[in-house]
Amino acid sequence: MAVRVDLNISLDGYATTTDQTPENPFGDDWGRLVAAYTATRTFRERVLGDRSGEGTTGVDDRYGAAYFEGIGAEIMGAGMFGLHNFPDDEDWRGWWGEEPPFRVPVFVLTHGRARPSIEFDNGTVFHFLDVSPEEALARAAEAAGGEDVRVGGGVTTVRSFLAAGLVDRLHVAIAPILLGRGLSLWEDLRGLEDGRTVTSEVAESGVVHVTFARD
Amino acid sequence: MAVRVDLNISLDGYATTTDQTPENPFGDDWGRLVAAYTATRTFRERVLGDRSGEGTTGVDDRYGAAYFEGIGAEIMGAGMFGLHNFPDDEDWRGWWGEEPPFRVPVFVLTHGRARPSIEFDNGTVFHFLDVSPEEALARAAEAAGGEDVRVGGGVTTVRSFLAAGLVDRLHVAIAPILLGRGLSLWEDLRGLEDGRTVTSEVAESGVVHVTFARD
Repeated sequence: MAVRVDLNISLDGYATTTDQTPENPFGDDWGRLVAAYTATRTFRERVLGDRSGEGTTGVDDRYGAAYFEGIGAEIMGAGMFGLHNFPDDEDWRGWWGEEPPFRVPVFVLTHGRARPSIEFDNGTVFHFLDVSPEEALARAAEAAGGEDVRVGGGVTTVRSFLAAGLVDRLHVAIAPILLGRGLSLWEDLRGLEDGRTVTSEVAESGVVHVTFARD
Repeated sequence: MAVRVDLNISLDGYATTTDQTPENPFGDDWGRLVAAYTATRTFRERVLGDRSGEGTTGVDDRYGAAYFEGIGAEIMGAGMFGLHNFPDDEDWRGWWGEEPPFRVPVFVLTHGRARPSIEFDNGTVFHFLDVSPEEALARAAEAAGGEDVRVGGGVTTVRSFLAAGLVDRLHVAIAPILLGRGLSLWEDLRGLEDGRTVTSEVAESGVVHVTFARD
């Protein structure tokens, strides 16, 4: 069992965007940050349910397909699930509609906002926990049945798992853009390369894929 | 005439290191940051005067050789020349001994510490100016006689030229290490990619070379 993280970041390290406005609630930066990934055939099939076979099939798609392979459980922060946006909406079921792309148990760290589990027909089950990274990982590892556990995001949750030394493989897809502000993945991670092998690869899109793998 | 910048930075964007101690006055991080470059045949020949032909000859060396090609003048900050370290030493002639690797006129921005020019036998002449980036560039461009002008560093000087829109080609050699602190190249450079083509290439050493070239 390995603990894996995959994140899209800008060249200046930002994993979040800050250009949302009432008129443009998602902003333009998020689309630019993840453009190479959302263009892949894997994303279109797995996340959008597009069976047309369209989408890119190069290096970005290889990482996109690997993202879903061998994952038995996922952990995410309250923000990624949407609890900060909809704290009082007990019917909130996440951003992903009725076919969340996870298809495995997902453990949401609630920071005090526990709620009943939510089960979907495709195998995705959201469980809500108010525990430490270590405890969440123990729960997720048990649910994963020997397969890997992903820490999905957001960046604050990822950083807490990295700081606790719990991540075996970190893959960042670096978009060649500078966002200038937001939440940085790299803050306080001095020496993360110690005891890890770092490999890099440039995709056709211009995205640079960097992987830190524990030796 | 193009204005060019080449910098070595860490994956988290730092162009300076902070682990200097009285016992280890250079620290270990600087060597790690520039290891791939100092291993190249070009660096050994051009900077160290090593005529043995030893050194790496791959992607890092290609960028190393390009660094010196077609440069007719250089601009650097007071810190890079050493004026902050030796403010009262009127005999200070820079860090590079009697064969500075520049071999062209070098304009040092003094921030109030003007001093007489210093000329070396190999064509390097240091001039000391207390002027704006634009004025320094005008002087350097005139001296370059149609060749390119490099803004050599340090990172604060580079950022001032980038912020003023004066840089035509920025090349960063990104070492796959996280320094966690220091002076970041990327601060306040949101949108630098606008109007520029960004290309990336991974060297055998693991260093990622990213180039922003004005369209």
